[in-house]
Amino acid sequence: MKINGDFWKTIWLDKNCCVNVIDQTLLPHKLETKKLTNGNDAYLAIKNMIVRGAPLIGVTGAYGLALSIKDDQSDSNLENNFYLLKSARPTAVNLSWALERVYKKIIKCKLEQRFEEAIKEANLIAEEDIKMCSNIGENGSTILKGIYLKKKLGSVGKPLNVLTHCNAGWLATVDWGTALSPIYKAHRAGLNIHVWVDETRPRNQGASLTAYELAGEGIPHTVIVDNAGGHLMQANLVDVVIVGCDRAASNGDICNKIGTYLKALAAKDNNIPFYAALPVSTIDWNIPDGLNIPIENRSTEEVSHIQGLNQYGEIEKVSLTPRGTKTINPSFDVTPSNLITGIITEKGICEANSLALKSLYI
Amino acid sequence: MKINGDFWKTIWLDKNCCVNVIDQTLLPHKLETKKLTNGNDAYLAIKNMIVRGAPLIGVTGAYGLALSIKDDQSDSNLENNFYLLKSARPTAVNLSWALERVYKKIIKCKLEQRFEEAIKEANLIAEEDIKMCSNIGENGSTILKGIYLKKKLGSVGKPLNVLTHCNAGWLATVDWGTALSPIYKAHRAGLNIHVWVDETRPRNQGASLTAYELAGEGIPHTVIVDNAGGHLMQANLVDVVIVGCDRAASNGDICNKIGTYLKALAAKDNNIPFYAALPVSTIDWNIPDGLNIPIENRSTEEVSHIQGLNQYGEIEKVSLTPRGTKTINPSFDVTPSNLITGIITEKGICEANSLALKSLYI
Repeated sequence: MKINGDFWKTIWLDKNCCVNVIDQTLLPHKLETKKLTNGNDAYLAIKNMIVRGAPLIGVTGAYGLALSIKDDQSDSNLENNFYLLKSARPTAVNLSWALERVYKKIIKCKLEQRFEEAIKEANLIAEEDIKMCSNIGENGSTILKGIYLKKKLGSVGKPLNVLTHCNAGWLATVDWGTALSPIYKAHRAGLNIHVWVDETRPRNQGASLTAYELAGEGIPHTVIVDNAGGHLMQANLVDVVIVGCDRAASNGDICNKIGTYLKALAAKDNNIPFYAALPVSTIDWNIPDGLNIPIENRSTEEVSHIQGLNQYGEIEKVSLTPRGTKTINPSFDVTPSNLITGIITEKGICEANSLALKSLYI
Repeated sequence: MKINGDFWKTIWLDKNCCVNVIDQTLLPHKLETKKLTNGNDAYLAIKNMIVRGAPLIGVTGAYGLALSIKDDQSDSNLENNFYLLKSARPTAVNLSWALERVYKKIIKCKLEQRFEEAIKEANLIAEEDIKMCSNIGENGSTILKGIYLKKKLGSVGKPLNVLTHCNAGWLATVDWGTALSPIYKAHRAGLNIHVWVDETRPRNQGASLTAYELAGEGIPHTVIVDNAGGHLMQANLVDVVIVGCDRAASNGDICNKIGTYLKALAAKDNNIPFYAALPVSTIDWNIPDGLNIPIENRSTEEVSHIQGLNQYGEIEKVSLTPRGTKTINPSFDVTPSNLITGIITEKGICEANSLALKSLYI
C-alpha cells in the first residue's frame, strides 16, 4: 500500500537475500527500515515489536529461519534457531505455524538445498498472506457497498462512516491487512468513505498505525479516543464497525484487542452492524467459546507511560500516573457472537456461529 | 482529604483574605498552590483549569467575585467582574448559579458591607458543598456495604471492587467529592475496598487525579485504560460501578464524561450494578431526556497530544498522531436511564426515573 505516494510492503527480500522491514516502533513519527541479515536479527525484530501483527510476525519468522541457515545448514543450527525464533512471541500462534511450515519443508532436503528452499517457502507464505488479505478485502467491500446503497448515502452526499479499533491494516500483515482491507478495496472502487479511528490505548496502534496507513492511501479519517465511539453511535455518525481478530472460538466469539467488546455492545445498542474480518486460520476449533480463551496481561508500563513526539521532534516516553501507581494491562477481550453481525473471511462472509463458520470450508 | 498525610481542601481563605487553590494542571506530578488576590486571578484559575469540576468552579467564582470588589465596591465594577467570571467557563451551570447567588446577596448592601458579605456568602457556598458531598458519601456508602455483605466478600477475604470513570472526587469539589465520596466514607468505616480507575482519555483525570486522591487516602486502586473495563466485568472482577454526573435529565438519563455510556452497557451486560452520584442541583427538569443535552466538543489537541512527566522530571506534552491528523473530541456522552441501577444524591438514593427523582424532594 502507499506511503507518501510510493508503494510499500511491510517486509521484502532484496537482491542480496537480506530481509527488509519497516521499523514500526518509530511510526507514525519516523519512517525507517531495518535490514535483517540473520536469525537473531529476525528474533529481535519480532521480540522488540519492530514488526507486529500475527501474519507479519509469521512471515518474519519464516524468513528469519531461512536467514539463520544461510551459513550453517546443519540440523542442530536449524533447530536452535527454530526454538529461538519461536520464543520471540510465545503466544503468537501464527509464528509457530510459519516456523513449522518452513522447518518441515527443509528438514528432508539436502543441506546445500536448504537455504534456497527455505527462502522459497517464506516467499510462498508471504504471497499467500497477500492473496488472503486481498480476498478478505474483496468480500468485505461488498458489505460496505451494500450498506452505502441501502442507506442511500450517495443521494445525500454523505460518506459511509466506518469505525475501527486498533490496527488490523497492512502494517499488521504483508499487504492489504484484514479489517482495513475492505476499506482499501471499497475506496479504490470509488466509494465515498470516512473512517473513525479508535486511538486504542494502551499502545495507540489506532492513533499511530491505522491513521498513518489511511493517510498514505488518502482515505478521510478522524482519530478519536476509545471513549468516544459510543457517543458517535448514539449521534448516528457510525454506519458500520469492522475490527480484526486475534483468535475466534468455534461458536463465533472473537478475541481481539482490549476494548473491542465495548464497541460491539454500543453497536448492538444502536442497531449498527458489527463485523470481524479474519483469515479462517484464526478460527480455533478446539475452543468452544470465547470466555475459554486465556487473556494475556502485557507490561504495566504500557498503561502508566506513553510514547509520542516532543516539541523538539524527538520520540519521548512520558509517565501519566502518580509515581508508584499500580496498573494492569489485559491486552484482549472477548466479544460474544450475539453482538457480531458477521465474520468476513477470505473464503466468504458468514454469521458468527459454529454451523455458519463450518460452511466456509465446504 | 489527605495528601501525604496532611488534610487539604481544594480551596481555602487565608488570614489575609486571599483565596488559595491547588494548581490541578500540575497534578499528579507536582503539588503546588496558587494564591488568588483579585477577580482576574480567579477568572484565569477557572479558564486555565487550575481549578476544575463544577462544584469547585462555582465556589472559585463566588470567592472571585468577592475578591474583585475588595478595593472597588461600585455597581459597575461588580457587574464587570460578574460577567468576566461568568465567561471563564460558559457551559458550567454551577458557575453562573454561584455568581448570581453572591451578586444577589450583595447588590442591595451598602458599599462598605459588600466585600464582607460576599466573602460570607462564598464561605457559605463552600460549606454547603462540603456538607452535600459528605451526605452523598453517607448515602452511597450504604450501597457499597450492602453489596459487600450480599456477596459475602468478607468471608472469602476479598475486597469490594468498585470501578469509576474520570474524576468525581474531592479535587472536583471542595472536599469529599461525589462519586468517590461513598468510597471514602466506606473505607473510613473499615470496608475492604479496591478501586479500578479508568484513566479517562483524553484528559486522563482518572490516571492523574483519581489515582492521586485515592493514594492520598490510602485506598488500594489500580489504573486501567478505558478499554479494559468490559473485560474486567466479564472476568467477574467488578462488583459495582459508580460515576459522577454533569447533568441529569428529568427521566433519569445522565450526561457524564465521554466513555461513561460504554461502561454502563458493559455493566448491564454482566449484571453489575451501575450508580451515578450527584447533587440534586444537577437534575435539569427542563430536559425531558438525555439525548436532548447538547454535547460540547473540546479542543482537538487533547486527543492528538498528551501531557506527562518526562525522564528529566519535567512536565512535557507529546503528540500521538501523525502530523496533520484530524481528531474530534466530544467531551460527554449520555447514559440512558435503563442502564442505571440507581441515583445517589445528598437527599437519598432513588431509581433513575422521573417519579423517583421527584420523590427526593418530598
